[in-house]
Amino acid sequence: MPNIVEEFNDYRERMNDKILSDNNKVIKRIFNLDTNAYLEGALDIKTKELLGLVASAVLRCDDCVKYHLETSYREGLTKEEVVEALSIATLVGGTIVIPHLRRAYEFWDALEQQG
Amino acid sequence: MPNIVEEFNDYRERMNDKILSDNNKVIKRIFNLDTNAYLEGALDIKTKELLGLVASAVLRCDDCVKYHLETSYREGLTKEEVVEALSIATLVGGTIVIPHLRRAYEFWDALEQQG
Amino acid sequence: MPNIVEEFNDYRERMNDKILSDNNKVIKRIFNLDTNAYLEGALDIKTKELLGLVASAVLRCDDCVKYHLETSYREGLTKEEVVEALSIATLVGGTIVIPHLRRAYEFWDALEQQG
Amino acid sequence: MPNIVEEFNDYRERMNDKILSDNNKVIKRIFNLDTNAYLEGALDIKTKELLGLVASAVLRCDDCVKYHLETSYREGLTKEEVVEALSIATLVGGTIVIPHLRRAYEFWDALEQQG
Amino acid sequence: MPNIVEEFNDYRERMNDKILSDNNKVIKRIFNLDTNAYLEGALDIKTKELLGLVASAVLRCDDCVKYHLETSYREGLTKEEVVEALSIATLVGGTIVIPHLRRAYEFWDALEQQG
Amino acid sequence: MPNIVEEFNDYRERMNDKILSDNNKVIKRIFNLDTNAYLEGALDIKTKELLGLVASAVLRCDDCVKYHLETSYREGLTKEEVVEALSIATLVGGTIVIPHLRRAYEFWDALEQQG
Repeated sequence: MPNIVEEFNDYRERMNDKILSDNNKVIKRIFNLDTNAYLEGALDIKTKELLGLVASAVLRCDDCVKYHLETSYREGLTKEEVVEALSIATLVGGTIVIPHLRRAYEFWDALEQQG
Repeated sequence: MPNIVEEFNDYRERMNDKILSDNNKVIKRIFNLDTNAYLEGALDIKTKELLGLVASAVLRCDDCVKYHLETSYREGLTKEEVVEALSIATLVGGTIVIPHLRRAYEFWDALEQQG
Repeated sequence: MPNIVEEFNDYRERMNDKILSDNNKVIKRIFNLDTNAYLEGALDIKTKELLGLVASAVLRCDDCVKYHLETSYREGLTKEEVVEALSIATLVGGTIVIPHLRRAYEFWDALEQQG
Repeated sequence: MPNIVEEFNDYRERMNDKILSDNNKVIKRIFNLDTNAYLEGALDIKTKELLGLVASAVLRCDDCVKYHLETSYREGLTKEEVVEALSIATLVGGTIVIPHLRRAYEFWDALEQQG
Repeated sequence: MPNIVEEFNDYRERMNDKILSDNNKVIKRIFNLDTNAYLEGALDIKTKELLGLVASAVLRCDDCVKYHLETSYREGLTKEEVVEALSIATLVGGTIVIPHLRRAYEFWDALEQQG
Repeated sequence: MPNIVEEFNDYRERMNDKILSDNNKVIKRIFNLDTNAYLEGALDIKTKELLGLVASAVLRCDDCVKYHLETSYREGLTKEEVVEALSIATLVGGTIVIPHLRRAYEFWDALEQQG
């Protein structure tokens, strides 16, 4: 059975390497900012991960949702906290968010099974 | 050959069950509303299904399009009516709707073959 | 007191004239299609107006909503029918549609007052 | 000088009253959910307000941003926390979020001046 | 008569100053990138301005469209070139782009009158 | 190994044939415009392809991105030019564009390998 967490991470890492080795300065700096923006600041890391998750969910970016689900999981956020964040995303973004909610649940399950 | 209608419905049902068993009140009520909103009212069911279909198409949500295509099919809407609704979606939403139009045609064909 | 219906129509007409006098073929044809797509076909005009309204509402285009509200009003659609269509838009598109719902109510009121 | 906070709240309240007095069940329930979703749960109210703010900002809904800025302000969130949340929104949503950032700063200033 | 070009630039400059004086690093770097991305590179400045214009138009960000219209005007792009770029935006993004096209024409006229 | 360029083109062509054989006038004319809009005019074909690419990327339409990548490749645009256009798309559209950037790189590689 394919492991959707590994599949996602492998493809993501492989393509990110290609993109970054290309040396386009604008893209490299955006990647850099993407790391910095989620570091501890006035807000703690957990809150920032949830902000990234909700932004990704209402913009309906499955890969971005997966990424923030994994980081949320690694940071120790509970399923209940994550689902509550996603419930706000579904309310603000409407029922078109629901298919992404299905895939988010599937990915969270895979994260829990993989541990 | 995989049946795209069954595949879609199986996954949808399985994940909806997971989501609803989780007992997040906001999400459960949105699912509830999603049933109520398409019931007969000032507008008949067929019109409402087409409204749901066009909203889904311009927002480019393939799964939502599939869901409303299937309900439209079960409610007896003709292909000509459905395509006319999708033509408005393509005009309002632009050529980025076309890839979703392709998948909508494929799904409608599968609905007709399955009967 | 400014009449928001007249203001909208005056600006729209004046700028459309400018755009069309510019003779860009692609734009002119899109304007043309925009008239043809809402003519009677497999679906009647009222249904098509509601489809245009819902597409505009979920894509959160106030001017497009106003245009379809006015045409819906002229075609004899009732407020109840229009609101029911907008309720589907709000459910599918989420609470971010609500500010547009407010402005839609205001515009419909202005249409009724103007008659 | 017009007070942009009062203007916003007056219009919002007046039109919400109109919408709710219309008794469309789907819309009323969405308004209801919109209150419930931000109540204390697994996540505290401050975090939820920031989630609503970021969702609104990336979806570029000025009125929704204003609403959550005001609630964030009333709940005691600091400007630094709010700006950090908006910085994530700008990164995730891109430079098209910047015009909304300008208006968010203006509204926050008005909130501080009004106290 | 209000000058829409000056009004836009004044507000934009005043609020950008506020935002940048706030010293949020992520936001400051995004502003920085926004300057660098449009500098001469593999593509010339005119082409990049048109890319920024079309991206802004399909994402329906009036302020971003105005900004790129002004830069395009200063860089010597002709109205015909700009309109052709906007025609692609209208086709790809659909008729919901039309209201933004109206405001783009109005702003371009103001740029020409101001010289 | 599946060839993602051929797979994409085969499906696209097959479904486009189905759609066009259906004779919905609005859809047929939109398809027609989609060809005309990218012909040489005030802007040359290469510039127009990049405009189509950036519009597709910020609207996050993978199939549209693939189509314009292939046409850009056939028209002789270099990888550096294409990446520079995509860097603007990523800045304007935000980090949610990154997953589409990954798939764009993968598709461009396939185009180069196929020749």
